[in-house]
Amino acid sequence: MDSLSRFRLFSFSSSSLIIVLFLFYRSVVGQSLPFPASDIWAKDSELHGFRGILRDEAVAMIKQLGKISDSDGYLERTFLSPASKIATKLIISWMEDAGLQTWVDPIGNIHGRILAANSSADTLLLGSHMDTVIDAGMYDGPLGIISAISALKVLNVTGELQSLRRHVEIIAFSDEEGVRFQSTFLGSAVIAGVLPLKSLNMTDKSGLTVGDVLRYNYFDPTEEALLELKYDPEKIWGYIEVHIEQGPVLEHLGQSVGVVEGIAGQSRLKVTVKGTQGHAGTVPMHMRQDPMAASAELIVLLENLCRNPEKFMSWSDSDESSLAGLVCTVGEISCWPSASNVIPGQVVFTVDVRVMNNKAREAVLYQLSDQIYQICDRRTVGCTIDNNHNADAVMCDSDLSLQLKNAAHSGLNILSSDSGEITDEIPKLMSGAGHDAMAIAHLTKVAMLFVRCRGGVSHSPVEYVLDNDVWAAGITILEFLRKM
Amino acid sequence: MDSLSRFRLFSFSSSSLIIVLFLFYRSVVGQSLPFPASDIWAKDSELHGFRGILRDEAVAMIKQLGKISDSDGYLERTFLSPASKIATKLIISWMEDAGLQTWVDPIGNIHGRILAANSSADTLLLGSHMDTVIDAGMYDGPLGIISAISALKVLNVTGELQSLRRHVEIIAFSDEEGVRFQSTFLGSAVIAGVLPLKSLNMTDKSGLTVGDVLRYNYFDPTEEALLELKYDPEKIWGYIEVHIEQGPVLEHLGQSVGVVEGIAGQSRLKVTVKGTQGHAGTVPMHMRQDPMAASAELIVLLENLCRNPEKFMSWSDSDESSLAGLVCTVGEISCWPSASNVIPGQVVFTVDVRVMNNKAREAVLYQLSDQIYQICDRRTVGCTIDNNHNADAVMCDSDLSLQLKNAAHSGLNILSSDSGEITDEIPKLMSGAGHDAMAIAHLTKVAMLFVRCRGGVSHSPVEYVLDNDVWAAGITILEFLRKM
Repeated sequence: MDSLSRFRLFSFSSSSLIIVLFLFYRSVVGQSLPFPASDIWAKDSELHGFRGILRDEAVAMIKQLGKISDSDGYLERTFLSPASKIATKLIISWMEDAGLQTWVDPIGNIHGRILAANSSADTLLLGSHMDTVIDAGMYDGPLGIISAISALKVLNVTGELQSLRRHVEIIAFSDEEGVRFQSTFLGSAVIAGVLPLKSLNMTDKSGLTVGDVLRYNYFDPTEEALLELKYDPEKIWGYIEVHIEQGPVLEHLGQSVGVVEGIAGQSRLKVTVKGTQGHAGTVPMHMRQDPMAASAELIVLLENLCRNPEKFMSWSDSDESSLAGLVCTVGEISCWPSASNVIPGQVVFTVDVRVMNNKAREAVLYQLSDQIYQICDRRTVGCTIDNNHNADAVMCDSDLSLQLKNAAHSGLNILSSDSGEITDEIPKLMSGAGHDAMAIAHLTKVAMLFVRCRGGVSHSPVEYVLDNDVWAAGITILEFLRKM
Repeated sequence: MDSLSRFRLFSFSSSSLIIVLFLFYRSVVGQSLPFPASDIWAKDSELHGFRGILRDEAVAMIKQLGKISDSDGYLERTFLSPASKIATKLIISWMEDAGLQTWVDPIGNIHGRILAANSSADTLLLGSHMDTVIDAGMYDGPLGIISAISALKVLNVTGELQSLRRHVEIIAFSDEEGVRFQSTFLGSAVIAGVLPLKSLNMTDKSGLTVGDVLRYNYFDPTEEALLELKYDPEKIWGYIEVHIEQGPVLEHLGQSVGVVEGIAGQSRLKVTVKGTQGHAGTVPMHMRQDPMAASAELIVLLENLCRNPEKFMSWSDSDESSLAGLVCTVGEISCWPSASNVIPGQVVFTVDVRVMNNKAREAVLYQLSDQIYQICDRRTVGCTIDNNHNADAVMCDSDLSLQLKNAAHSGLNILSSDSGEITDEIPKLMSGAGHDAMAIAHLTKVAMLFVRCRGGVSHSPVEYVLDNDVWAAGITILEFLRKM
């Protein structure tokens, strides 16, 4: 990083001077660069789309961050965990290298800011999350943080950073996946001022609450203290988030990036089924109140309902089109006491329900609960359904999305200028995954750029984004910043 | 214990001497007894069925052992765990108090022996297991150990211990439940010489193998070393095990004890279902290979098959009566990576199948595997079925069972002599639960006494045996020892 930031001193000199100085520079620091120093100018020129910074360096940063994990052998980095604190130091160093002023707030969000020449300008927020799921891929979250850092770094190299029309602030949010506390958007919800106070009482597997963890971090999360962290909507212009698509649409269309029209709403339930614990060998089948068999029936029902909602729901519940894209998932299950020769006394599992139409989601939850209670009554097991998380669908701002789309078009044309190809229309698509933009939408207008991923696979170690698509994301943000 | 063993010195003196000595005894040690010392003679006389030793003391010992756990808040004592080592010391002290010579073998079995006057006599084994399931009841296992110790203690008190017709040896087996290594009968299988060598490679949750644990215990479990621990069938006369019924039959019949005709065979499977891990929000329902939904369908199938085997199996597989008592249980389930917003990549669950008829069990396993593979093929998920444990059904020895039944009849008549009631015929019943007698049946003839438990509930902290039923078990063993 250091060698490259020295390099920018020369980048706007005249060409003959550049050649002389470059030969000198190459003899001094060239050996420490990740690619032959003779290629630097060629690769990082305006003409060539700053490939060194926006593609090669960005990919190297993504890979480096992807190795910082709380677990051996797979990627797992949760809210305020030991690995997240190591990752924080690294992200701060990258932000500072891009010329940003940095700080970490009490919720663990990392901020990197550059002020516009006019101090009364409003602020563009750029960001994504630094936490991961368990056994995660390395692009989900970091791609959005790093493409923003890389774009600002190019402006720093070209000297444009000091002449931005708006303040620009990157935020690396500390919790989007909600793995540790089963409550998503802890980081972005505080910035938007929409974190429910009851979230502070949610516990992790060790029994610590969100509040406990924040107090260990020297922050007492009172209502007043949290409100002080909320950003003022009057001073924020908008929010842009780059994220991997995590679905198969862009790959299917053969496009590297797309603009998001909206994000599906989601609900998360915890279903607890209580039966009668007993010996696996001595309780006749017809005398059992087995919560495992009951849970299995409930999960089969859930799958049926979400595959074929029209079979379960009347037309008054919701029309067919509003149920398009409905997906339901059981991602966690556990039983007690968990021994192969004991009929369990209790089984607990999670349910994740997503669909674009908020009323359709409510109708699905109503139908699902009704069916669950019917099955539990018939089996004489006790069922409770806790609704731990609800997020309404969010529509992206059409003007901001148009600007983002134009920036993507402009950026992709730079990348394809060598080949002479003209970039097609940038596709628009929906997001089935939740993003920090959902929380930030309570604060300001939002827009999102999706980046193609291989096979549509995410939340998996085989998650993969082409290096050239990382580049496309970076150049889109660069073009957006130049034209905003 | 010590005060009571001093007391036995006086128990066969003339009645006037007893009264004088008893008053002296009471003044010296009476305060440390769990009940008023003035009741001792009355309670522990032959006439009154030795209520103090066989009921009150035995119940106190069961409760004391039930508090020795590896976990806080619930009972869990597994193979060679820290709690099992504390329990070992306690059981040894009780055996020695009953006049037995004691030792612990390298597999963790505790032995307590008294030799017959004729050293060439053969040996009666008495025993049950000291390990427990997770969140266990306190009677399952310890009842059999403690009723045997109590009966021998009475013989020690009455002076009959030195004139037994056979050597008698109690064994508290170190592993019957198989919680730690998912392989049952580690303790009794070594005594019977039937432990498969591959069992030594099974791992616990921390990754230690059975072999590792034994070597930490200063025992290298080579084939030769294990064979040296095997008992010589020529020198063993038979094996008697007292155990709680763990089912509802005796309670339904209104009987305190019953004699077991046979023990159902059992098989334990581990089913692993592998699908495609992915993001819960972005993979359409029809594009999923979801191992959780597949596992739920498999568990629903399993329940159906075991409730209504006649619907799944042709008459050539097995006749209807041979499938009577078939029970199937899924007691453990886990998924990876276990996050509510991730479609799991893998789900693993256990299957426990039991039925008296061995051929019927094989037919059920065949049908079950066939159905599992069909469902997995249809869902394009990968399924593997590991058969971790098979134990054929065991029939108890009819002669030994008849002697046990006569002893129970005689014992219960002593207990009911006060009330003038005549005890009914002792019931005969089958066992759906596996017991150490299954392994010891490879060594010698076996018989078992079942003791009534409340609601048929076992493998649960609410497991309960009436104090008077503990007494009935103890007096049955006492009468058996006297008449063998």
